[in-house]
Amino acid sequence: MSTAVPQSEPATVQYVEVTAPRVHNLHHVEILTPRIEESLDFFTRILGLVEAGREGGSVYLRGFGEWSAHTTILTESGRAGLGHMAWQVAERDQVEGWRRRLEQRGHEVQRLPAGTERGQGDAIRFRTPAGHAMELFYDFERCAPREPSRLLNQPERYLAGGVGVRRLDHINLTAADVDRTRDWLAGELGFRLREAARNPDGSDIGVWMSVTSQVHDIAVMADGAGEAGRLHHVGYSVDTPEGILRAADMFAEEGIAFDAGPGKHGLTQAFFLYVFEPGGNRIELFSGGYAIHDPDWQPVIWKGEDIGRAVVWYGAPLPESFFTVAT
Amino acid sequence: MSTAVPQSEPATVQYVEVTAPRVHNLHHVEILTPRIEESLDFFTRILGLVEAGREGGSVYLRGFGEWSAHTTILTESGRAGLGHMAWQVAERDQVEGWRRRLEQRGHEVQRLPAGTERGQGDAIRFRTPAGHAMELFYDFERCAPREPSRLLNQPERYLAGGVGVRRLDHINLTAADVDRTRDWLAGELGFRLREAARNPDGSDIGVWMSVTSQVHDIAVMADGAGEAGRLHHVGYSVDTPEGILRAADMFAEEGIAFDAGPGKHGLTQAFFLYVFEPGGNRIELFSGGYAIHDPDWQPVIWKGEDIGRAVVWYGAPLPESFFTVAT
Amino acid sequence: MSTAVPQSEPATVQYVEVTAPRVHNLHHVEILTPRIEESLDFFTRILGLVEAGREGGSVYLRGFGEWSAHTTILTESGRAGLGHMAWQVAERDQVEGWRRRLEQRGHEVQRLPAGTERGQGDAIRFRTPAGHAMELFYDFERCAPREPSRLLNQPERYLAGGVGVRRLDHINLTAADVDRTRDWLAGELGFRLREAARNPDGSDIGVWMSVTSQVHDIAVMADGAGEAGRLHHVGYSVDTPEGILRAADMFAEEGIAFDAGPGKHGLTQAFFLYVFEPGGNRIELFSGGYAIHDPDWQPVIWKGEDIGRAVVWYGAPLPESFFTVAT
Amino acid sequence: MSTAVPQSEPATVQYVEVTAPRVHNLHHVEILTPRIEESLDFFTRILGLVEAGREGGSVYLRGFGEWSAHTTILTESGRAGLGHMAWQVAERDQVEGWRRRLEQRGHEVQRLPAGTERGQGDAIRFRTPAGHAMELFYDFERCAPREPSRLLNQPERYLAGGVGVRRLDHINLTAADVDRTRDWLAGELGFRLREAARNPDGSDIGVWMSVTSQVHDIAVMADGAGEAGRLHHVGYSVDTPEGILRAADMFAEEGIAFDAGPGKHGLTQAFFLYVFEPGGNRIELFSGGYAIHDPDWQPVIWKGEDIGRAVVWYGAPLPESFFTVAT
Repeated sequence: MSTAVPQSEPATVQYVEVTAPRVHNLHHVEILTPRIEESLDFFTRILGLVEAGREGGSVYLRGFGEWSAHTTILTESGRAGLGHMAWQVAERDQVEGWRRRLEQRGHEVQRLPAGTERGQGDAIRFRTPAGHAMELFYDFERCAPREPSRLLNQPERYLAGGVGVRRLDHINLTAADVDRTRDWLAGELGFRLREAARNPDGSDIGVWMSVTSQVHDIAVMADGAGEAGRLHHVGYSVDTPEGILRAADMFAEEGIAFDAGPGKHGLTQAFFLYVFEPGGNRIELFSGGYAIHDPDWQPVIWKGEDIGRAVVWYGAPLPESFFTVAT
Repeated sequence: MSTAVPQSEPATVQYVEVTAPRVHNLHHVEILTPRIEESLDFFTRILGLVEAGREGGSVYLRGFGEWSAHTTILTESGRAGLGHMAWQVAERDQVEGWRRRLEQRGHEVQRLPAGTERGQGDAIRFRTPAGHAMELFYDFERCAPREPSRLLNQPERYLAGGVGVRRLDHINLTAADVDRTRDWLAGELGFRLREAARNPDGSDIGVWMSVTSQVHDIAVMADGAGEAGRLHHVGYSVDTPEGILRAADMFAEEGIAFDAGPGKHGLTQAFFLYVFEPGGNRIELFSGGYAIHDPDWQPVIWKGEDIGRAVVWYGAPLPESFFTVAT
Repeated sequence: MSTAVPQSEPATVQYVEVTAPRVHNLHHVEILTPRIEESLDFFTRILGLVEAGREGGSVYLRGFGEWSAHTTILTESGRAGLGHMAWQVAERDQVEGWRRRLEQRGHEVQRLPAGTERGQGDAIRFRTPAGHAMELFYDFERCAPREPSRLLNQPERYLAGGVGVRRLDHINLTAADVDRTRDWLAGELGFRLREAARNPDGSDIGVWMSVTSQVHDIAVMADGAGEAGRLHHVGYSVDTPEGILRAADMFAEEGIAFDAGPGKHGLTQAFFLYVFEPGGNRIELFSGGYAIHDPDWQPVIWKGEDIGRAVVWYGAPLPESFFTVAT
Repeated sequence: MSTAVPQSEPATVQYVEVTAPRVHNLHHVEILTPRIEESLDFFTRILGLVEAGREGGSVYLRGFGEWSAHTTILTESGRAGLGHMAWQVAERDQVEGWRRRLEQRGHEVQRLPAGTERGQGDAIRFRTPAGHAMELFYDFERCAPREPSRLLNQPERYLAGGVGVRRLDHINLTAADVDRTRDWLAGELGFRLREAARNPDGSDIGVWMSVTSQVHDIAVMADGAGEAGRLHHVGYSVDTPEGILRAADMFAEEGIAFDAGPGKHGLTQAFFLYVFEPGGNRIELFSGGYAIHDPDWQPVIWKGEDIGRAVVWYGAPLPESFFTVAT
């Protein structure tokens, strides 16, 4: 499968380039909300995302450090939850390759020609075994900065409006069968297992996986209610832990509902703060963590008495809601 | 070349996996020093690296967040400078692939069988056109933590000895011909150009390139003296800007020679501090920067009046030494 | 001589100098511990206090930013708790003045001639109505820095050993009758009420008082068990909230028992972390708060539904132990 | 009534209450600007001060943590500079006492009845020997918060608009004769010398003095041009060094003129950033420093080779402008 140097083949470029197929990076998430105006106020005035446009029942947003036209979509809905998540692939013609690959492996794949979704090129859509809608694409519209930064490597000025989240960081889902979802993400899309919390019977309570150097681009945790397709939280990146403390001050002033934190997980080494946005979805502000550049990373497995430290390295115990509420 | 989906081929895994060949990550650097004991004191007591062993005229070191046996080698020498730098490749059998590829493209490559260098598996060695020794390998000895962390995802306890650098971050070299080195790194090893400072004539003053999501794993800047094979600095990662301010306090107490900073470059958005270790090599403490996950990154080119902001976004002008001293 | 009112001058000068008599600043605390070696390890290796000497069953300590020979005394004892606290007065001859004043007001006062306690000049000793031993003095031995800082305004080098607390910050006591203790501290010693948590019946649950610009030098909270003379915690000053997060990392590695935090109280605006030192006493790391320079400060009273925010502005609810455990 | 010495009681009480007369705290500054609209934009949108009103050619401002109606006055003028500075005294009837005292000592004092200046009670006005206008008063109008904080101990919500300076911190003046001004501030108003930079001939280059626990409420530095009544800078307090780095990012985006920093002075241990507001006055953002609670503080004198560290502990050399430009 993934070995790279067929001994008998001619000495071509392929000798050094073949690695396991994997998607390239988390690009955007669509969040459903029954209270779109309040949610929008939270994401823009408080978190500091930039509004990039509205269309139908959706509002399009991005962080000050993101070059794409948008990376968060708020969509009005009768319920909170995940509309879909979308991943970018490494090269343009891989979109078609992924379609063939997934169909050959028995998955149902829908084609979304360029323009079907705002800003997005040719894409495909399918579902994880846990029921979450997922899209893959390569081309995406570049942002038109509202106030271009004098830093050429940053699209928008950082004018310290609200929390000032830099970018979308990761997504955390729940699944009735964590192991199956883990194996599917690894086998079908190339996600690497970075860390896991494991039961004594060998099954996983939660898994943290990535295709980038982030310790996780996606996490899957056991769904307490055994339901399908639910969202635990969407994580946004804040530059420093102190930035998260500033955010906590603002949330407290605004009366935003805290779920957990500020605190630090042992697992992923995240300095975290979880709140519920007005639509009911859990949002994480994330800082810290650690980068994985090693090609030979050994998954870190927390089990038995270590699990307590995985969940809370420092800070208070997580509240019951953290383990029961998903959207 | 790099396109991924040969239309006529069978629908195999390859459809989604072929990307431009590139090395995987910076693994270690060997730093030459004429004052090894003083250098060692700087790297261990002050920077907080862990000593992993001594052998011959070398001392082997690593940061508290690094899983390899060592990532910095201090080697006694009549002069300061770079011994060599070493890059890990994505898979074990790519080492041999890279050897064939480089030799086919006309480069002189030396084989270093496993064990030739402490802790390192089969490797190859060659030189950049600017004269810097470079090695590629996959296998490396894992660290035996001195004081294992209770965080399973971190090898050594963070006990706040000295600055507490987490890991080696990047290397910055000088070259008489920056453009040629840039093209060589891109064409031969797959480095992507992330940012550049460009002359009016279109040649580059400096280039910042990476194979990971870091804005740079390697940089190459014009060598003021036109010399070959010189080192501008080695960069270590500190978790937060405040950690760099703490470091500045310690350096001032210890009488360490500051070169520049603390300050922030526009280019790379680095919050930086440069000092000279006792052996004479420039060392950077680096925090911040930004991650690049976009597969379609457009290199950021600073030129004309923007160059001032590239060099110093905030903080004082860089001293003359920054542009003239390399080792 | 340092008094300001030449007795022969007209009384007009007094118009600008007379203020309510008050002690000047918290100087040191004596903490009792049944496990002195473990406690010493905690205060020196982990908190980073400097050991200034041992004598009898006591060890003498100070922070890197303190000019006195010592400000924390650990004394071996069959139980944890407060030995005594000591306050410096504004001028040398006020020690005798305070003695006369307190005796005139009916309090029992003990004279402690210079040298009775290590490093301390002429002093007096008495008890608060809640049973805590308190001393007043002016003269105290200056520190002999172990490693003098190159900063002339700082006695010891900051070499980042452990947490690196700068200095003793405040003391927090419990009392069976908070109101009575509050009135006594204000009336007898000049403490000003800065903030209070108040019951619906007008009595105070806790009071935060100071004689300096700090929001509190001393606090008194209701003793859950109705006992006398107990200590809730001793607070040490850390320069920044991030310094407290670093401390939390170290405490977690060391297996130190957390009580509460990191988090932020609304009351005092403290960014806090409470742990139990090995002897069983609660220790707070404190950063932030706010300075009071206004001569006409209006005490801030938290009551009713505001009390929740007073206790926790952000972070998790305080554990039961916070309200029940004192030493 | 607030005096503490019932005239009929025996003199013993005085033993504990008499201290050198001194003013109580810096209350506000009036800054002259030839470009009031641009200055106002700087102080409000960028620094984050709250506008409290306009009257005549003046705009009245305060920080989010200040209880007075205003603490910074911007006044339109043909030139930049200091209008006046005003100090609060410890008790109401001391205003009259200070008047008598100053007149008895030969100074010219002007009475400003309550209401002469917006928000201010009975006051007196006089000049320092270096020509700076100074006022003393006790009563001042309390702020009417625009958006009251849910923290009862903080008047305005911290909503992270701009830099978010908490409060006015200190004032720094220039004088042709530093020694004379130092002695006058100490002898007439009770300022204590905390630190000084001293010439080999024993005269002072600069002095840092306070009446509070701050290391300086006022500083006086040699006026390079030998002029009278000039302002070096006004300092505002930012909660953390990281807050100053955020400010530097915002200033760089806005194209604000940096003078010096970010960096750290040895003298006062200030983490500093100096910029010129659009009217031409130098403004410092200040964080850190250290508190002085010791009643027996020994002034810290920097001279000879230590002066370099006093000026810059870490960071780049101060620019020429720092030593030549005053307003």
